[in-house]
Amino acid sequence: MSESVFWRVDKIRYEGPESDNPLSFRYYDKDRRVLGKRLEDHLRVAVCYWHSFNWTGFDVFGAGTFDRPWFRVSNQLEAAEMKLKAAFEFFEKLGAPFFTFHDRDIAPEGATLKESNANLDRIIDKVEVEMQRTGVRLLWGTANLFSHPRYMGGAATNPDPEIFAYAAGQVRKMLDVTHRLNGENYVLWGGREGYETLLNTDMKREADQLGRFLSLVADYKHKIGFKGTLLIEPKPKEPTKHQYDYDTASVYAFLQRYRLEREYAVNIEANHAILSGHSFQHEVAYAIQNGIFGSIDMNRGDYLLGWDTDQFPNDVQEIALVMYTILKGGGFTTGGMNFDAKLRRQSIDPEDLFHAHIGGMDTLARGLLAAEKMITDGRLDAIVQERYAGWKGELGERILSGKASLADLSDLVLEKGIEPKARSGRQEFIENLLARYV
Amino acid sequence: MSESVFWRVDKIRYEGPESDNPLSFRYYDKDRRVLGKRLEDHLRVAVCYWHSFNWTGFDVFGAGTFDRPWFRVSNQLEAAEMKLKAAFEFFEKLGAPFFTFHDRDIAPEGATLKESNANLDRIIDKVEVEMQRTGVRLLWGTANLFSHPRYMGGAATNPDPEIFAYAAGQVRKMLDVTHRLNGENYVLWGGREGYETLLNTDMKREADQLGRFLSLVADYKHKIGFKGTLLIEPKPKEPTKHQYDYDTASVYAFLQRYRLEREYAVNIEANHAILSGHSFQHEVAYAIQNGIFGSIDMNRGDYLLGWDTDQFPNDVQEIALVMYTILKGGGFTTGGMNFDAKLRRQSIDPEDLFHAHIGGMDTLARGLLAAEKMITDGRLDAIVQERYAGWKGELGERILSGKASLADLSDLVLEKGIEPKARSGRQEFIENLLARYV
Amino acid sequence: MSESVFWRVDKIRYEGPESDNPLSFRYYDKDRRVLGKRLEDHLRVAVCYWHSFNWTGFDVFGAGTFDRPWFRVSNQLEAAEMKLKAAFEFFEKLGAPFFTFHDRDIAPEGATLKESNANLDRIIDKVEVEMQRTGVRLLWGTANLFSHPRYMGGAATNPDPEIFAYAAGQVRKMLDVTHRLNGENYVLWGGREGYETLLNTDMKREADQLGRFLSLVADYKHKIGFKGTLLIEPKPKEPTKHQYDYDTASVYAFLQRYRLEREYAVNIEANHAILSGHSFQHEVAYAIQNGIFGSIDMNRGDYLLGWDTDQFPNDVQEIALVMYTILKGGGFTTGGMNFDAKLRRQSIDPEDLFHAHIGGMDTLARGLLAAEKMITDGRLDAIVQERYAGWKGELGERILSGKASLADLSDLVLEKGIEPKARSGRQEFIENLLARYV
Amino acid sequence: MSESVFWRVDKIRYEGPESDNPLSFRYYDKDRRVLGKRLEDHLRVAVCYWHSFNWTGFDVFGAGTFDRPWFRVSNQLEAAEMKLKAAFEFFEKLGAPFFTFHDRDIAPEGATLKESNANLDRIIDKVEVEMQRTGVRLLWGTANLFSHPRYMGGAATNPDPEIFAYAAGQVRKMLDVTHRLNGENYVLWGGREGYETLLNTDMKREADQLGRFLSLVADYKHKIGFKGTLLIEPKPKEPTKHQYDYDTASVYAFLQRYRLEREYAVNIEANHAILSGHSFQHEVAYAIQNGIFGSIDMNRGDYLLGWDTDQFPNDVQEIALVMYTILKGGGFTTGGMNFDAKLRRQSIDPEDLFHAHIGGMDTLARGLLAAEKMITDGRLDAIVQERYAGWKGELGERILSGKASLADLSDLVLEKGIEPKARSGRQEFIENLLARYV
Repeated sequence: MSESVFWRVDKIRYEGPESDNPLSFRYYDKDRRVLGKRLEDHLRVAVCYWHSFNWTGFDVFGAGTFDRPWFRVSNQLEAAEMKLKAAFEFFEKLGAPFFTFHDRDIAPEGATLKESNANLDRIIDKVEVEMQRTGVRLLWGTANLFSHPRYMGGAATNPDPEIFAYAAGQVRKMLDVTHRLNGENYVLWGGREGYETLLNTDMKREADQLGRFLSLVADYKHKIGFKGTLLIEPKPKEPTKHQYDYDTASVYAFLQRYRLEREYAVNIEANHAILSGHSFQHEVAYAIQNGIFGSIDMNRGDYLLGWDTDQFPNDVQEIALVMYTILKGGGFTTGGMNFDAKLRRQSIDPEDLFHAHIGGMDTLARGLLAAEKMITDGRLDAIVQERYAGWKGELGERILSGKASLADLSDLVLEKGIEPKARSGRQEFIENLLARYV
Repeated sequence: MSESVFWRVDKIRYEGPESDNPLSFRYYDKDRRVLGKRLEDHLRVAVCYWHSFNWTGFDVFGAGTFDRPWFRVSNQLEAAEMKLKAAFEFFEKLGAPFFTFHDRDIAPEGATLKESNANLDRIIDKVEVEMQRTGVRLLWGTANLFSHPRYMGGAATNPDPEIFAYAAGQVRKMLDVTHRLNGENYVLWGGREGYETLLNTDMKREADQLGRFLSLVADYKHKIGFKGTLLIEPKPKEPTKHQYDYDTASVYAFLQRYRLEREYAVNIEANHAILSGHSFQHEVAYAIQNGIFGSIDMNRGDYLLGWDTDQFPNDVQEIALVMYTILKGGGFTTGGMNFDAKLRRQSIDPEDLFHAHIGGMDTLARGLLAAEKMITDGRLDAIVQERYAGWKGELGERILSGKASLADLSDLVLEKGIEPKARSGRQEFIENLLARYV
Repeated sequence: MSESVFWRVDKIRYEGPESDNPLSFRYYDKDRRVLGKRLEDHLRVAVCYWHSFNWTGFDVFGAGTFDRPWFRVSNQLEAAEMKLKAAFEFFEKLGAPFFTFHDRDIAPEGATLKESNANLDRIIDKVEVEMQRTGVRLLWGTANLFSHPRYMGGAATNPDPEIFAYAAGQVRKMLDVTHRLNGENYVLWGGREGYETLLNTDMKREADQLGRFLSLVADYKHKIGFKGTLLIEPKPKEPTKHQYDYDTASVYAFLQRYRLEREYAVNIEANHAILSGHSFQHEVAYAIQNGIFGSIDMNRGDYLLGWDTDQFPNDVQEIALVMYTILKGGGFTTGGMNFDAKLRRQSIDPEDLFHAHIGGMDTLARGLLAAEKMITDGRLDAIVQERYAGWKGELGERILSGKASLADLSDLVLEKGIEPKARSGRQEFIENLLARYV
Repeated sequence: MSESVFWRVDKIRYEGPESDNPLSFRYYDKDRRVLGKRLEDHLRVAVCYWHSFNWTGFDVFGAGTFDRPWFRVSNQLEAAEMKLKAAFEFFEKLGAPFFTFHDRDIAPEGATLKESNANLDRIIDKVEVEMQRTGVRLLWGTANLFSHPRYMGGAATNPDPEIFAYAAGQVRKMLDVTHRLNGENYVLWGGREGYETLLNTDMKREADQLGRFLSLVADYKHKIGFKGTLLIEPKPKEPTKHQYDYDTASVYAFLQRYRLEREYAVNIEANHAILSGHSFQHEVAYAIQNGIFGSIDMNRGDYLLGWDTDQFPNDVQEIALVMYTILKGGGFTTGGMNFDAKLRRQSIDPEDLFHAHIGGMDTLARGLLAAEKMITDGRLDAIVQERYAGWKGELGERILSGKASLADLSDLVLEKGIEPKARSGRQEFIENLLARYV
């Protein structure tokens, strides 16, 4: 179709590191075998609907800058269909195996929930056709419980139970839709589940409400037979001053408190990680160690800015460490790498959307290939194993197995006059080793 | 004794807000009745040994600036005794009901654990005498598991199990000492329980080690019949890049993971709270809501600096909110307000130590009196109650009791065409109300 | 007019600290004499148009929440007139002596600059009438050079000189308008004068462009005989990653570099100060010390958030210190206290706008009254004077007057064996003193 | 000498990227020609004395961890000599062309300035011999005006003029020493030139004192005929709450204010840059654009920590951008890359010091080689040139040359109905391009 916003771009192909074609992959070679699996199947890349097709380029200080044809159509269902075509054309040309969306990204909100649901049904029919046609799959669906003014004070944590009910209605519908589209996960991001000020907030009560909400969602999932994973996405702040799903540890505390730790995993976003004061790798490692790792919202933040910049990733070293951690944790099961990333507001050409995703996917591929080297080489792991070797000895075993009491250990030190010998942590040596892989 | 470092200062007395005597309290009227209890019994103020008597005024960029007589004595046990006298003279003149200390604050480390324990015993004999003489009590004791080079890679989380054992030896001794001195709590601050780099760290293993350590400590506490509360003190970073006890939520996740949530509570430090990205009030409220609130390390940080400045508190509004939260949570049981605060490095006169604590105690007292007004007045609470009133209605009850499923709620909204009515969050109104109390 | 959005509110009056009427001032007693001047004339409070009348309550994550009648009018000039009436009704009822606005706040942008100017002229005629009627004056005008997509890459610093010219056209018009309305200042906030990435930016060239722009503005001001002060408003980031007017020091460096330091002063915003890593008081003190202090954008930020929250001020201690600094610097001349502050997004009732401004004005008044006490009492100043007393002695004079060379001073120390005696900085003592005033 | 702390390490050689020898360079091939100059002459690497030979591994929470032989020698002059030998052995084995030191790093402080100077003279005699022997040169010298308690309230900005005089004595001596050793620069880092609280500070007076001090230093430099560059090192905070040399812009504002902008340049530290909220590249670009770029203190910080971690650099992409900026600015003249970086506290083996510097030098070399590609390729520069091409047209020239007034430009836009056409900023495209070089 000549009027397509992406007509100037052909299918993006892998052309190797030396290619001078900016509209090609240099590293993302989807069929390359990496540790016994296709590269594509390791990364499970998804394109998101909201940033790439709904966002106009506006920010708090200025109006939209992107001139996409569907922004100019006043009939919103028509606009949604036009957008849908463009989106699937993009997914297909890019070669992304997955996509993700909120209910309100893909179909317009109506005057009532009934109307909204009808709008959604109408568009989902067409989504199904496009998915069939292209083979693009749904990594996860989610409901937007934060943009409409009704949610200004939260959804599940709102002081008004009717708003809780409304949110329940939206989530139920989107779970149905996600199930229908064979989505591999369902995500809950607590957009306004938090507070602006403790002065008007009953935090305990809101936690109980949220616990109840998540229980209802898990129940419903089982009832309809949805086999995907339920995911919670931590974020420390923005839009609210304090978000309850602050970081993975907060979410883990919450899940245990409400006995939901087997029902939910986390969808970790790189930019959210650093906003909460942790490295991206830390959040992933923490989730894996506690059995709640699910999926990734892939982007990068700016360490010198205090808000979510949602830039496309370009730091191969960071990705290599994260991929190394994920691979050592067993790799993705239902999860994947969703580009929750947006163009810079000045990147107004449709081609920029390709450049952004190509750069992101190449970065992920380079990171994966570096992680492959780290694992194959084995030296990094050996250093860590060696460092803790003492714990495999007799004393270590006695301690960990609970055979030695505090008094026993104290007596041991007193009797033997133990003064442990210091050993180097070798951080710089290991950093140099890491530089060999990236 | 004429050579006392504090000889120029007499006992500090309450003289009322109009007093022009800088060495008097203007608000800290210990016997004043506040909500049915003595002001002193609400605040349970403690002076800490480490900052006030051990710290020389050094920092990373420069040598000590405080000329205290015990720093000039080369025999360390003699110095410890001289320091002890000065400390109790200070507690007494100030009128603080409690003090706190680490094992190594009060008695010098020896060449072996045995020697260190002997040093400790010798000084503790004298501490007991001083406590008897003055009536000053021990809010809590703790072991220093971070200053000696052996702990450079952590104590319980060290890659070397001998160091775990050494730490066990220290904690056992200090638990014994704390028990002997009728301490009301015992604190564990994970000074170097964290990592410098994930590259050389097995975070899962270290968590298991820490879980084991805390279990051993709890077992030992019960064995010796110590009735005080075990406290963990969250801190996000410094000295390590990442501390495992990052914030209260991280600690709560950890305690639940290792089934220790009934054995431990938290000792929340104001400065640590803001370093972890939370307000002081948030940390307190979160701990109370989850039943793990224990005690307070009272100080203030500088919001524009990224390290622990440990300044004395002077923000009445912040303290009022925190005291309001504590009082509504039932007030302190075994916990209290320990001044984990230090003089500025240029405040070299012995009198400065009095000014700092007087200012801090007056700030706490003003905060408490403001909180009393907030509670007595009741308007703040009424606004919050009113905001959530809907949850006491039928729909709210059905939701929270688990009677309504996701589908039920969805049906309700669809059938009734519910569109909840927006209500103002009234933040500015409430902030103006707050301004009436402080 | 019955349909007025503010019809439920009467004129706000001073009723004293004990008043229980939330729609009254408790401290802002405009005619009270403070250090020989009316309180109102010290503070010179202004209400801003953009946050209070144009902002819909939207944020990056959600739609507007405020239901103001002019948002529902489709004819934009009609809407502008309706808004204008509401704004002046508000100014009058509040009793604010000043207001401030951008060109695009008050009249809609047209298809061309010519149309925009015509729209502006039409509304300004009515503004003039309202100013006459109410006596409300214009603290400053400014041009919005950041919201329209044309400015996405900056205005004066844009890579396209036509955009520079367009910006020149807007500023010229708004300078004319400000002059016509007897505005006391004209403000330039470099909304997008900065960069997103250095990769596509020629920072040197952009600085030269900005220097040229500011020179042209100063020339034009003199040409038309505008006697108000030209002000630059520092901000470190947001919307751009790096704003050139980062903080007062950066602006001062720039002004000197382009020899404009006598043409421009700064308009310091409290929230911008902390985003740049400085205290509000620091920025004010720095500007005064270098002779470039102009005016204040009054608000507060949240120290734990990394973006401009633009909340209304409520920290009396901070305001007291700032007012003390301003008063010691001679007080405002053309400048004033503009509330560049916005309601929280949930504060949707029209009354909330009153509560917010009342709370802000009462906070300023309390701060001013505290500063008055600090000055009258004189102890704070005496301590500082005494601390530097040595510089009034012979050695100090010789050094500052340039009579002693480096070698002379070295010789002096060597010959006399000088080892200066340490003196306490007394910070805690002074903080306690400060607590007496607030 | 068998007892050398570094006896296990031989001279470090370049062995190429494939070398498996961790004690070899993989990229730092000092004689490689890069853009017409030897790699070594581009980078001008220096090793610093303070972190590498004086620091014991202590931090605020714990004692030193490094067991260097000179820490065990009680006679301080003997220790200084032993340290000196080790340092030069290290410089030589590493192959660093430069070193740097403070007066008190290299020789012990005496009871008086006279004694200190005598100590310094004695050691400098030996330094001269070692420099002769090894060919290692002095990049810069500096005086420590922050560690001794006398400087707790600042040196030049101290409230006591005698301390100013003492500091003058130290700087005079170190300027003499630096001159004698043919140092290429002399650095002033304002370690405690700042404040802890504005409450006890006369900031204007302190600025005047500092201006006077810097003038005296410049005068003395000319008097003795020292041809090196005088450098100021910006840092925003730590140890003080606010350092006057906050960032390069603050320094530039100050230098202009005191008419010193031709006498001083800046020594930019990577870690200090990010602590002040700027990227490292930004600080370098800003200094170059304003003609005050001097030298680099090479290290890296941790973006998630708020203090100076002084780690060795390992981010090739960051270094590539900085080297690109420096090369385009003409490269170093007297400046160089001083490793103001320290081992992690757990890196206690002497070999760790080699690993750290090798990793750092390899990172610099990789960055330089990437920058060479960026320059040779030319595409990055072409994109920027093209982006600003409009400014070389007629309108651009008229504006920049001052021929067009504000009114002229306004008239132009109004008459021609100009609405500039938007062009993409292409950030993601350029980031992908950058990924080709690193």
